[in-house]
Amino acid sequence: MEQAIYLDHAATTCVDSEVLEVMRPYYGREYANASALYEAGRNSRQVIEQARSRIASCIGARAEEIYFTSGGTESDNWAIKGVCLASPKKKHIVTTSIEHPAVLNTCRALEKQGVRVTYLQPDSWGMISPEKVAEALTEDTVLVSVMHANNELGVIEPISAIGKAVKSKGILFHTDAVQSFGYEPLSMPHLPVDLLSVSGHKIYGPKGIGFLFIRNGTEIRPFIDGGGQERNMRSGTESVPLIVGLASAVSKLYKNQYRYAWHAKQLRDYLAYRILTEIPDTIMYGGKKNYGKYLPNIANISFAGIDSALLLKKLDQAGIFASAGSACHAASGEPSYVLQAVGIPRVQARGAIRFSVGKDNTKEEMERAVHWIKKSVAQLRES
Amino acid sequence: MEQAIYLDHAATTCVDSEVLEVMRPYYGREYANASALYEAGRNSRQVIEQARSRIASCIGARAEEIYFTSGGTESDNWAIKGVCLASPKKKHIVTTSIEHPAVLNTCRALEKQGVRVTYLQPDSWGMISPEKVAEALTEDTVLVSVMHANNELGVIEPISAIGKAVKSKGILFHTDAVQSFGYEPLSMPHLPVDLLSVSGHKIYGPKGIGFLFIRNGTEIRPFIDGGGQERNMRSGTESVPLIVGLASAVSKLYKNQYRYAWHAKQLRDYLAYRILTEIPDTIMYGGKKNYGKYLPNIANISFAGIDSALLLKKLDQAGIFASAGSACHAASGEPSYVLQAVGIPRVQARGAIRFSVGKDNTKEEMERAVHWIKKSVAQLRES
Repeated sequence: MEQAIYLDHAATTCVDSEVLEVMRPYYGREYANASALYEAGRNSRQVIEQARSRIASCIGARAEEIYFTSGGTESDNWAIKGVCLASPKKKHIVTTSIEHPAVLNTCRALEKQGVRVTYLQPDSWGMISPEKVAEALTEDTVLVSVMHANNELGVIEPISAIGKAVKSKGILFHTDAVQSFGYEPLSMPHLPVDLLSVSGHKIYGPKGIGFLFIRNGTEIRPFIDGGGQERNMRSGTESVPLIVGLASAVSKLYKNQYRYAWHAKQLRDYLAYRILTEIPDTIMYGGKKNYGKYLPNIANISFAGIDSALLLKKLDQAGIFASAGSACHAASGEPSYVLQAVGIPRVQARGAIRFSVGKDNTKEEMERAVHWIKKSVAQLRES
Repeated sequence: MEQAIYLDHAATTCVDSEVLEVMRPYYGREYANASALYEAGRNSRQVIEQARSRIASCIGARAEEIYFTSGGTESDNWAIKGVCLASPKKKHIVTTSIEHPAVLNTCRALEKQGVRVTYLQPDSWGMISPEKVAEALTEDTVLVSVMHANNELGVIEPISAIGKAVKSKGILFHTDAVQSFGYEPLSMPHLPVDLLSVSGHKIYGPKGIGFLFIRNGTEIRPFIDGGGQERNMRSGTESVPLIVGLASAVSKLYKNQYRYAWHAKQLRDYLAYRILTEIPDTIMYGGKKNYGKYLPNIANISFAGIDSALLLKKLDQAGIFASAGSACHAASGEPSYVLQAVGIPRVQARGAIRFSVGKDNTKEEMERAVHWIKKSVAQLRES
């Protein structure tokens, strides 16, 4: 990707070179199993616990509330299935129709096991109303899962208000913060959330690691059983390099959060402004009128009369990497279910592309990108 | 661990430097999400599929029968829970009392959900009898799970005979091959096994990755739901560096299997011979009379009248790293359940240490180790 312009940071990011440097010794001689009692094993254990504390302190959590997992998807699976396992008599979950597939398909799998799931619809801005959540709660509801920010639109959900409504009924509340983490600073003592999922590879950390925040006292069962790692809650030999890498990525992100967010917003706004003003028949979903409620790095823009797959292909040939919808759905060819859920007609949704910028993008790259987007759209509209 | 003598290869291994070299580019600029449709994404996809084929060809499997997971523990959880989910009406599992905790505790978790589990006892050699397995099968049995080789004794189970008995009844058969992989070459077309678990970090590959072999046609549900990666069977963004590292480790292991096994056997036998002949009141469990049925790298030796925790501590101070039982149980202080299951009295089991050698150990290290073991045992027995 030497010359390419990478505008798909919502799909994944490059491991930060400082993060990689921190991981290196643990791929070398510091390889001991953290459960071993000898010196090298105790060192591994200490390194893991330092990483846990470091992450916890960034979000105001207690160290013992951070559980390492293999990534955001496992965290979501664990949160939802683990809560259901702990309270098998309650058989109702409330979530939304615009969740990431890691939440949606976990809920669908539970439906096959007799759990009832309510999928709330967002408004035309992509917002989930706390009132609607409150109305959906029943005596039988065991968990509510609403994402912190949507991965396609960038819309930030009113998590605090939703959490308050949910907690007032004594029901557990999970949020998938994979996409928002770092852009929306978290303060766990004040956020009415019991479970929160985070992934390493979206925040310049390694792939294959993430964490689940579980507030002390939350009724949840382990999801992966075995040797009893993570205080008997998540078994499997800990990957010290990945854990250290995650902690380093979280810590660097929190240290630079305003700078990263400001940089992303500048570039995203510039890119969007140029596209919307210089290419006719373009619409931006989310983020256009009211930036405050949207992530600063995502611009989801529809090009009328164009099939996004063809436009992405043209951009790919020019070395510009972006996507339509989530990477997980890239190959399906179906227009985004998220855009359809906010009421965008199929024909419009088919022409939508998600551009997501990152900390290493430059204004010069945005200019080159606009040049190629204009050219590609013109060619496709002519043909 | 510069000067230390590492004799705990059954707990984990150092990533091979060649494996690390192969992983490097994917921690650098080759970071694209394998689900993305642009060039960099397609490259990631291709690299993953090449890794899959490479692993498959080592064990004679089809590429589509290899599913990447976060490690051996997840593979075991998936195999057992996924089969139960696919056939919810059958509610009986047969396993053994000497399985790794990843299997045992997964079974125990299922017991809480109404599944009945038969835990077969081994004979005094640690062997599980195929006849006993056959007798335990019922109309209600959905799965049999017997490990390929035991991680504490090194005993290799008669998997082929057990598999034949199980398959003749049309029941699914899973084996945890985490400890034996590479030492016992596999030929999947001829092995009557439906599911087989492997971990990367036991074979000089990275931690946080493993695979589950699932024979085509096996009835199993996904364990981690989400974006549909791994042909809809194991969701979560693929970690390309870890996958590439695993394939490289498997491939190097298969290329060097006879050399590694021979080297390990030489060192293990030398270490055991010297301990057993030069230190009074020592017993070796498994591997002593009939090496053929035991892994070549493990020596589990009991020192009469000694608490293994104290001996391990003394060895630790001398820079010799070994363990009692599995790393996962290290901190409990309980004598090994595996040794107790083969009829070794608690008082003897309390004095047992597992030495496990690896490809980078040397004879000079064994000599130094013997020196310190003799000295430490003498000191403890005097005190």
